[in-house]
Amino acid sequence: MIKSVEWTGVSLRIIDQTEIPRQVVYRELTTIEEVFEAIQKLQVRGAPAIGVAAAFGLYLGMKNGRYRDKRDFLSQARSCSEYLAKARPTAVNLNWALQLLLDKIAAQAGQPPQLIDRLLEFSLLLLQDDQERCLQMAAHGSRLIKNGMVILTHCNTGALATAGIGTALGILYTGWQMGKKFEVMVNETRPLLQGARLTMWELQQMGIPAILITDHMAAYAMQLDKIDLVLVGADRIAANGDVANKIGTYNLAVISRFHKVPLYVVAPLSSFDLNLSAGDQIPVEEREPEEITQIWQRLSITIPEARCWNPAFDITPADLITGIISERGIIYPPFEDSIKRLNHMTYQNQEVSSL
Amino acid sequence: MIKSVEWTGVSLRIIDQTEIPRQVVYRELTTIEEVFEAIQKLQVRGAPAIGVAAAFGLYLGMKNGRYRDKRDFLSQARSCSEYLAKARPTAVNLNWALQLLLDKIAAQAGQPPQLIDRLLEFSLLLLQDDQERCLQMAAHGSRLIKNGMVILTHCNTGALATAGIGTALGILYTGWQMGKKFEVMVNETRPLLQGARLTMWELQQMGIPAILITDHMAAYAMQLDKIDLVLVGADRIAANGDVANKIGTYNLAVISRFHKVPLYVVAPLSSFDLNLSAGDQIPVEEREPEEITQIWQRLSITIPEARCWNPAFDITPADLITGIISERGIIYPPFEDSIKRLNHMTYQNQEVSSL
Repeated sequence: MIKSVEWTGVSLRIIDQTEIPRQVVYRELTTIEEVFEAIQKLQVRGAPAIGVAAAFGLYLGMKNGRYRDKRDFLSQARSCSEYLAKARPTAVNLNWALQLLLDKIAAQAGQPPQLIDRLLEFSLLLLQDDQERCLQMAAHGSRLIKNGMVILTHCNTGALATAGIGTALGILYTGWQMGKKFEVMVNETRPLLQGARLTMWELQQMGIPAILITDHMAAYAMQLDKIDLVLVGADRIAANGDVANKIGTYNLAVISRFHKVPLYVVAPLSSFDLNLSAGDQIPVEEREPEEITQIWQRLSITIPEARCWNPAFDITPADLITGIISERGIIYPPFEDSIKRLNHMTYQNQEVSSL
Repeated sequence: MIKSVEWTGVSLRIIDQTEIPRQVVYRELTTIEEVFEAIQKLQVRGAPAIGVAAAFGLYLGMKNGRYRDKRDFLSQARSCSEYLAKARPTAVNLNWALQLLLDKIAAQAGQPPQLIDRLLEFSLLLLQDDQERCLQMAAHGSRLIKNGMVILTHCNTGALATAGIGTALGILYTGWQMGKKFEVMVNETRPLLQGARLTMWELQQMGIPAILITDHMAAYAMQLDKIDLVLVGADRIAANGDVANKIGTYNLAVISRFHKVPLYVVAPLSSFDLNLSAGDQIPVEEREPEEITQIWQRLSITIPEARCWNPAFDITPADLITGIISERGIIYPPFEDSIKRLNHMTYQNQEVSSL
């Protein structure tokens, strides 16, 4: 089993995803700055994995400090959280995990030395909780898979993107283990090629047959009736069901609707942000032009002076989404009431099962 | 002025487009086999440029042969043509140019030595004819450009793709020279990155401001109202107006329609194939997986064993096309009658102006 984030007892061990599939390199992160950098450089990526990494980052940032009292401890923990949250502005899980930890700590009795121990405990529970939630999403979503299907996926939403088996890709793993036979079509996912690099590698490890395409081939594949189902992840979901996800998701949603191919978004409840009523309020991170002009930081593909527009995410309006699969089941449009109900049941109240 | 194909007197000089923008390398082709290889390897590419190159390829293949009589000459010329036509199965201009030459030669008086001279003359006229047609398309199409527009283009349809100023890109050059102010958004055009490599380079040479994006960003740009007009080329147009063009064109057409952005196809009449009633009859070339798995033949981006689906073209149904711009003007749907009329006026009757 691939472990993208793991606590060794003294460090956060991550797989450096910028090196996959060329080599599997583990990095041991021991400071908050190293965690920040690993998130920002996409060595660790995927909304749920980022949330877990950030929790340990907060612990690493706090564990050697000196604190006058609990109030001082909380104040410094908030500073650390604000620092970490800046590593990736779009993924809400990052904020969510940090806020959850801060709230839990604030509610604890005890002095700073004990609070530090609690921070580590909560981080470990968060990791375990993410693994369980992946399994729950997979249980719900795998019902959609039928023998003979070709299922298109985008970016990487697997074990590398979470602490567990993944979101959209976790569904495929579970379906495959249930003995269902299908093929996966994989969008390479420019600019950073998470589909070509990470998803193709993960699917190979699971023995699931996969076909790689470039990102604009999917429309033609749909015209030729080659795709039965589309599964994507989410970085943030607004209260009305609008979804921020990897750039290219919106394109997929438009062509899926045009060809009447069902498209499901797979995301844990931690990706829902009920503070935002609609997708246009989600901040969309724009990244460096070099991600486009230099493939995989290695090969320059255009004139050196090229100007680029490089939004890392896009916003898919709820009405282009067939359904959203969370650990609580599958919801269908109109999403607003269902999301409110889900939310009430779980996260915004922070009734996290294992925390 | 960039010259992608040029006759030196003894050889066909081409710019090796697989090296742009890293370096400008010219190759001197002196045999039919070299021309075949240059076309197949995409050193020379773009439907009109391929047609011109093939004509000189036929001449190079015939000029040193020995022929019993005109009948023998024509028979061997047909063999050479069939060989060349296999270099790229989708682009009709290749067949069209070769067939035009064969028919012209068949109609000539004279014996093989004179027929060889005629072949060269006709090839040179074809090159000049292509240049004129580019200017005519540009004159018609540039009327669509208004100040302040952002115009999206796909692949490369410029001087590198023709013997002249280009088709879709030729329109932008002419508009710019007329003093219109606009910006061009350039799809990088995976897998072979003709947009990033060739179009960005050409636009830079012309001083036209350009913004590079990855191919699935265009949908999000349209959602944000950033694109006013889409101009693409064509490799083959069926009698009903269905268009075969670079993979990704169909995706563009679907998202353009969804966002009500006008999309025009720009192509000379030699790209129309009235033998085919609809797009599903156009053969679509599927190319090697390495074009996807190894970027620019230099950088491997996925697992070595990756399976790929790599159609080089896709088919855009006529009803997703706003208009088709040829050297005879702009036609609008329903295209069938207009295409018949255009055809009657010119090519299928081989009333090529300068030939």
